[in-house]
Amino acid sequence: MRVAYVVPGPMSKGPMGRSEMERREALLQGWAFAGTQVAVVDVPNGPASIESAYEEQLSIPPTLDRLRQCESEGVDAAIIGCFGDPGLEAARELVDMPVIGPCEASALLAASLGHRFTILTIYDSMAASQEYLVHRIGVRDKLASVRATDIAVLDLMKSPDRTLARVLEVGDAAIREDRADALVFGCMTMSFLGLADTVSQRLGVPAINAGRAALKAAEAIVAQGLSHSKRAYPRPPKLTTGIGKVEDLALA
Amino acid sequence: MRVAYVVPGPMSKGPMGRSEMERREALLQGWAFAGTQVAVVDVPNGPASIESAYEEQLSIPPTLDRLRQCESEGVDAAIIGCFGDPGLEAARELVDMPVIGPCEASALLAASLGHRFTILTIYDSMAASQEYLVHRIGVRDKLASVRATDIAVLDLMKSPDRTLARVLEVGDAAIREDRADALVFGCMTMSFLGLADTVSQRLGVPAINAGRAALKAAEAIVAQGLSHSKRAYPRPPKLTTGIGKVEDLALA
Amino acid sequence: MRVAYVVPGPMSKGPMGRSEMERREALLQGWAFAGTQVAVVDVPNGPASIESAYEEQLSIPPTLDRLRQCESEGVDAAIIGCFGDPGLEAARELVDMPVIGPCEASALLAASLGHRFTILTIYDSMAASQEYLVHRIGVRDKLASVRATDIAVLDLMKSPDRTLARVLEVGDAAIREDRADALVFGCMTMSFLGLADTVSQRLGVPAINAGRAALKAAEAIVAQGLSHSKRAYPRPPKLTTGIGKVEDLALA
Amino acid sequence: MRVAYVVPGPMSKGPMGRSEMERREALLQGWAFAGTQVAVVDVPNGPASIESAYEEQLSIPPTLDRLRQCESEGVDAAIIGCFGDPGLEAARELVDMPVIGPCEASALLAASLGHRFTILTIYDSMAASQEYLVHRIGVRDKLASVRATDIAVLDLMKSPDRTLARVLEVGDAAIREDRADALVFGCMTMSFLGLADTVSQRLGVPAINAGRAALKAAEAIVAQGLSHSKRAYPRPPKLTTGIGKVEDLALA
Amino acid sequence: MRVAYVVPGPMSKGPMGRSEMERREALLQGWAFAGTQVAVVDVPNGPASIESAYEEQLSIPPTLDRLRQCESEGVDAAIIGCFGDPGLEAARELVDMPVIGPCEASALLAASLGHRFTILTIYDSMAASQEYLVHRIGVRDKLASVRATDIAVLDLMKSPDRTLARVLEVGDAAIREDRADALVFGCMTMSFLGLADTVSQRLGVPAINAGRAALKAAEAIVAQGLSHSKRAYPRPPKLTTGIGKVEDLALA
Amino acid sequence: MRVAYVVPGPMSKGPMGRSEMERREALLQGWAFAGTQVAVVDVPNGPASIESAYEEQLSIPPTLDRLRQCESEGVDAAIIGCFGDPGLEAARELVDMPVIGPCEASALLAASLGHRFTILTIYDSMAASQEYLVHRIGVRDKLASVRATDIAVLDLMKSPDRTLARVLEVGDAAIREDRADALVFGCMTMSFLGLADTVSQRLGVPAINAGRAALKAAEAIVAQGLSHSKRAYPRPPKLTTGIGKVEDLALA
Repeated sequence: MRVAYVVPGPMSKGPMGRSEMERREALLQGWAFAGTQVAVVDVPNGPASIESAYEEQLSIPPTLDRLRQCESEGVDAAIIGCFGDPGLEAARELVDMPVIGPCEASALLAASLGHRFTILTIYDSMAASQEYLVHRIGVRDKLASVRATDIAVLDLMKSPDRTLARVLEVGDAAIREDRADALVFGCMTMSFLGLADTVSQRLGVPAINAGRAALKAAEAIVAQGLSHSKRAYPRPPKLTTGIGKVEDLALA
Repeated sequence: MRVAYVVPGPMSKGPMGRSEMERREALLQGWAFAGTQVAVVDVPNGPASIESAYEEQLSIPPTLDRLRQCESEGVDAAIIGCFGDPGLEAARELVDMPVIGPCEASALLAASLGHRFTILTIYDSMAASQEYLVHRIGVRDKLASVRATDIAVLDLMKSPDRTLARVLEVGDAAIREDRADALVFGCMTMSFLGLADTVSQRLGVPAINAGRAALKAAEAIVAQGLSHSKRAYPRPPKLTTGIGKVEDLALA
Repeated sequence: MRVAYVVPGPMSKGPMGRSEMERREALLQGWAFAGTQVAVVDVPNGPASIESAYEEQLSIPPTLDRLRQCESEGVDAAIIGCFGDPGLEAARELVDMPVIGPCEASALLAASLGHRFTILTIYDSMAASQEYLVHRIGVRDKLASVRATDIAVLDLMKSPDRTLARVLEVGDAAIREDRADALVFGCMTMSFLGLADTVSQRLGVPAINAGRAALKAAEAIVAQGLSHSKRAYPRPPKLTTGIGKVEDLALA
Repeated sequence: MRVAYVVPGPMSKGPMGRSEMERREALLQGWAFAGTQVAVVDVPNGPASIESAYEEQLSIPPTLDRLRQCESEGVDAAIIGCFGDPGLEAARELVDMPVIGPCEASALLAASLGHRFTILTIYDSMAASQEYLVHRIGVRDKLASVRATDIAVLDLMKSPDRTLARVLEVGDAAIREDRADALVFGCMTMSFLGLADTVSQRLGVPAINAGRAALKAAEAIVAQGLSHSKRAYPRPPKLTTGIGKVEDLALA
Repeated sequence: MRVAYVVPGPMSKGPMGRSEMERREALLQGWAFAGTQVAVVDVPNGPASIESAYEEQLSIPPTLDRLRQCESEGVDAAIIGCFGDPGLEAARELVDMPVIGPCEASALLAASLGHRFTILTIYDSMAASQEYLVHRIGVRDKLASVRATDIAVLDLMKSPDRTLARVLEVGDAAIREDRADALVFGCMTMSFLGLADTVSQRLGVPAINAGRAALKAAEAIVAQGLSHSKRAYPRPPKLTTGIGKVEDLALA
Repeated sequence: MRVAYVVPGPMSKGPMGRSEMERREALLQGWAFAGTQVAVVDVPNGPASIESAYEEQLSIPPTLDRLRQCESEGVDAAIIGCFGDPGLEAARELVDMPVIGPCEASALLAASLGHRFTILTIYDSMAASQEYLVHRIGVRDKLASVRATDIAVLDLMKSPDRTLARVLEVGDAAIREDRADALVFGCMTMSFLGLADTVSQRLGVPAINAGRAALKAAEAIVAQGLSHSKRAYPRPPKLTTGIGKVEDLALA
C-alpha cells in the first residue's frame, strides 16, 4: 500500500529543507510493514510551522488540496503531518481514502496502553486546544494532562540533548504529579527526533511517537479494507448535488 | 460603538446580493441599542455558503483577514456571520476587540432561558459538528438535540412559508420528543427571516435568533469594557517574538 | 426599560444602610445602556447577609414576594442581588419578566471570554455549593476552581485596599495553579467595590463584575423580546388550575 | 433510637388530616428495626403540598425550625418528608443529627440494586429539577429517566386503583423504552400507598418506597455512629463567631 | 435475618487464622441490629490476600461457589469481604439474595454524608481500578481521590499504632489537598482495626468502616423486602434455558 | 512476529471443534501482515461460551494460565478471544507482551472512523456490561448504543443467512434511530462469520470485525516496540517482593 505523510507547510523551502523531508521519509519507511511504501510531501503555501490556531487555519486549505491530489495519484491513505490534526474533518469529507491525524492515532493508542496519558506539547497556550481535540477524539477521560516543554518547534532539533533533558524532566513530572502512565509526543518534530525508546526506558512508561503511531493506524485501517464513515463525514452537499466542482465551493 | 457583522462569503456577489446585505444591516441596526452602529461586510473570496466542514475551512483564512481589517478601521467588536463560528479561536488570537460567534452567543443565551435547548440546523450531517461546538462552548449538557430542517441554505428564503412550516414542525417535535424548552435557529439565513416571534408564540418556548443574540453579546461585552482573555487566546508566538508580520506566517 | 436590582436582605436597615443602596443604584445606572432605568430595592425581612445555605433559604420567600411586587409595578426585568442566585427557579415560575441571577449571568459571560474561569468567593465552605450551581447553569466543565478570599461579606468594604490585595493574590494563584484565564467576583459586595478594571490590568485576564454582568444580561434579554421559558419554569399547577391566589399556597 | 419524619406542610390541618399522619407513623413504625421509635410531625405553616419550586421554597424556613426543634427534643435523626429533599443542605448546617432526604436515600439505594433507575414523578414539569437533584446526589449517570404519572399529589389517594394502574403503565414504559431496571416512587404520598410490593411483582424490577428507604438510611447512619460531614455542611459562620442566635440571621 | 460475610480467601488457614475470623464475626455481630445473625466464612481455595487484579480474579470462582452454598443454606444476604467487590455482578446473576460489595456500600454512604470522599487504599497501583469501580457504582463525581497508605494488607495488623498514624497523615492530606469531607477505609483489614471513631474525631470528618457499612446495607435491603434487580443481573441464559446445572457452564 | 489468539473456552472439545479453530486461524493468518504468524489456542477448562458475567469469571483464571504459557513459549502478543475482554487487566499484570482485548481494539478503531458507533451484541442483558467496558476503554461518549441480535452464540453459525439478515436489520435501526455511523460486531463468533464487507456495503457505514481489529492492534503495538504500561498494570506486589511464584498467590 502507498501512504502519504503530508507536512502541512513548506518544509522543503524552510530551514529544515528537503533533507529533513527525506530523513523523515526514511524513518517512516523503516517503521512500515513490508509492502507499505511511504512518501513525505509538503504543502508549499502553508505556514512555516504551527504554534497557534491562526497558523493551523492557514495550513488547512492548501493541505486539503494536497490531500485530494494524493488521492488522485493513487495513494491508499494519508497522514496529516501535524499533531493538531488540522483539517481532519474536512479532509475526510473530500476524499475516500483514510486520512489519519497523529493526535487521534496516538491518543487512541495511549488509551489502550494505560489508564492516563500526558501529551508533551510546545507551549502552555496550546493546552486548551489539545484538551478540546482529545475530547473530540473521544478519550478526554484518559488524558492526565497536557504539559509544555517550552521549546519552539523550530528549535527542537537545534539541541537534541537539551530537548531530551527537557522531555525527561516534564515527563517525569507528569508521572509523579498527574499520575500519567503513558506519554505522547505532542509535536511531529519532537516525534521524529528518535527519543521514544530512551524516554520509555528512562521513565518506565510507554512513550508514543505520534508519527509512528499514525503510520500504524493508516496501515491497520487500509489492511482491514476500511475507511472513515461517509455517514460521519459526508461529501459536501453542493458536490453531491452537482452544483459543480470542488473549486466552485470557493468563489475566489 | 461600532459593530461589524462579517459574512464569511461573497454575499454581495451571490444570488442574494448586495440588497440582502443591506436588509440584514437594517435588521441588525433595528435590534441595536441606541449608540450602536452596525455594518454588514462580506468576504469576497470565501465560499458561497457553508454546509460542510470543507466550506467552513475555506471561509476562515479570508475571514480572518477581513476581521483584522475591521479592527484596524476602528471597529469595536465583530460578529462572524455563520452559525458554525468558523475561525473563532484564530480570530481571537489575532485581534484585541471582542469577536462573537453566533452559536456561542445563542447557546449561552438559550442555556440561561431554560433547561434544554434544541438547535434547528440545515442537514443531519451537521449534527455531530454542532454537538462538538456546543461542548467547546461549554453547555453540552443543556443541548437537548440538533434537528435538521433539510432545506438548503440558499433555498431558505425562496419559500418563507414552507420554511416557517418546517421550523414549526421540527421545533414541535423537539419539544415533545427531546424535552426541549428553548429553540435556537442554527443558521444565519434562518435567523434573518423574521420567524422568531411567530415561532415563540406558536410553540410556547423562546425561539432565539442567532444574529440578534450575537449582536446583544457584542454590545454587552463592549459596554463592560471587556474582551476575550488573551491568556486563553494568546497572540501567535511568532508575532510576539518579532519574527515578522502576520503575513509572514504563511509562505505563499 | 426598567430593571430592578433586588437585594435579598434588609440593606437599608443594616450597617451599610440606605446610602449604600443609592451608591449601588448609581453604579448600575452608570453601567446601563441609554434608555434603561435601574432601581435598587431591598427585602426588609431577609437575612443580614448570605454566607450559608441556611441564610440563603431564609432570604428566598420574602425575596419572591418582592419580585412579584416589582412585576406588578411594571418592572421589565429583575436581578436577584446575591451571587448564589437564591430562589431563581421559583422566581421564574412566579413572574413572566426575566429574572437574572448574577452567578448565572457572569458564569455564562466568563465561559464566552476564555476556556476556564475561577470564582472568587468568601469562604471555602461555599465552594461545593457554587460548583453545584455552576453545574446547574451548565458550564461546570469551564470552571477552573472556586477560591476563597476569607474576608467576611460585611468586612469587604471596611478595608478596600486589603480586599484588593487579597483578590489579586488569590486571582494570581488561580491563574498559575488552576490555569484560570478569567475571573469572576463571586459576591455582590465584592463586585460593587470597583475593583474589576484594576484586577484585569494587573493580572492580564478579564475580571467580571457580577452585578454589571447581570445588568447586561437583563438588558439583552429584554431588548430581544425574550424571557425565560415557561416550559422550563411553569407556573405552579395550583395557581393555574384556579385553586387560589399565590398566598394560598402557604397555609400560615 | 428516635427518628422524626417531618412533613414539610400542614398535613394535620389539611384534607388528609391527623389520621393520615397517624397512618404514616404506623407504617413507618412497622418498617422500623426493633429499638427504633418513629414520630411523624408536620409543619403547620408550610404549603399544602409541593408541586413546584415555589412551594418547595415556601416549605423550607418553617421546616428548618421544626428540625431544630426535633433535635432539641432529643431526636436522633430526621427525615424531610418530601421527595424533593427541600432544605437538606441548610438543615445539615443547622443540626448535628443526621437529616435524610428521601430522594437521596432512594436514589442511592436504587443505584445499588441495578444499573439504571427511573423516578416516577407527578408532573413532567418536575423532571428537570429532579435530574439536577440526582446530579447533586451523585448518581446522575444511573438515572434512566424521570417519568410523570400526571396525577396531582392530593388526588393520588382518592383512587388507589387508578394510581396503581397508572404506576404500572408508566413503570412498564420506563423498563421497555428507557431500559430502567429499578423504579423509585418520586413522591411521598405515592410511597405511602403500599404499592411497592405489587409493582415489584408485576413488573419484575425492584420498586423502591422512598419513605421506607429514608427510614432505613436514617437507622443505618445512626447505628454506625455517623452523621453528615460538618466540613461539607458547616455551621453558618455568623453562628460560630458568636454574632448571635439562629434567629438573628433573619432580621424580621 | 442471617447475613454471611464471605472472606474471599483462606483466612482460616493463613497467618491471621481462625481467631481473626472469630474476632471479625464478633465485631460484625456487635454492629448488627437486633435480630440479625452474622457468620464469617472463608474461601479455602482463594488467594492469601488481594492486592492486584490477578489475585482478585483468582478469588472469584471459588467465592461464587461459596455464595451459592450460603444461599442454599438459607442465608438472607451476603457480603463479599473484599473492598474491590470481586465478582459482584456474577454473584448477583447466580443468587437471589442480596449480595453486598463493601466498596459499593461505603461509597454510596460516603456520597450521602458529604460532597467529596477519599478512599484510603493500600498501594497507588490500585487507584485506577478503584476509580473505575466507583464509576461503576455511580458516584465517580463525588470521589475526591484515592490515596495509598503503602502498608501491605498482611502488615496492617502488625503495628496498629503505625497504621493509625499513617491513616491520620494520609486522611489529613486528602482533606487539605483534595478537599475531601469524608473518608472511606478502602481495605477490609483496615476496616476491622477499630480506627474509625478515632479518625473521625481527630480529623473532623466521617470515617467510614467499609465492613460496618456493608452490614448496614445488607440489613436495610433485606428489611425492605428488596434484592438486586434480576433485570440488571439476569440469570445466565444457559441456566434458564435448561442446558444444565451451574457446573455445566465450565467444561473442566 | 508470533501472535496467539486465545479462545477462553474449550472450543476444541465443543460442538464447533478443532476444525473451527483451524478455520479461524486461517482467517486470522489471511488478515495478517507479512511476517506475522498467528496461532489459535483454546482453554480446555473454560466455559463453553460466555453469555453472562458468571461465565466470564469462570473463564479468566484458566485463560490467565494459558497466556503466561504463551509468553513463556515466545509469543510476541496475545489476543483474548472474547468480546468482553475477560481478564485483560490481570493478564497485563502477569505478562510483559501486549495483551489485546477485541472490544478495546474495535471500540478505539470505531472511534477513529466516525462519531458514534453501535455494538451489536447477543442479548440485551449484556448492554450494561458493555457500556461499562466501553467507559473503561475510554470512549463511552462515542458509543451510540448497544443493540442485541438475540441469537445465542452457539446458534450464530447454524444459520448464517438468518444471522446476516438480523445483523442488517439491527444495524439499520442503529443508524436510523441511534445516529450510529459505524458498527462493531460485539461477539467473536459473529466476527468470524465473514459478514463485515457485506454489512458495510449494504448499510453504508464501516462494519468492524473485532477479531481482525484485534489482530491489527497487536501487530501495530509490537511493530512499534511498545507494550502495556507497567505503571498502569504493575506486577502483583507479592510476585515482585519475592514471596513466591505465581502459583503461591492462590492457596488451593
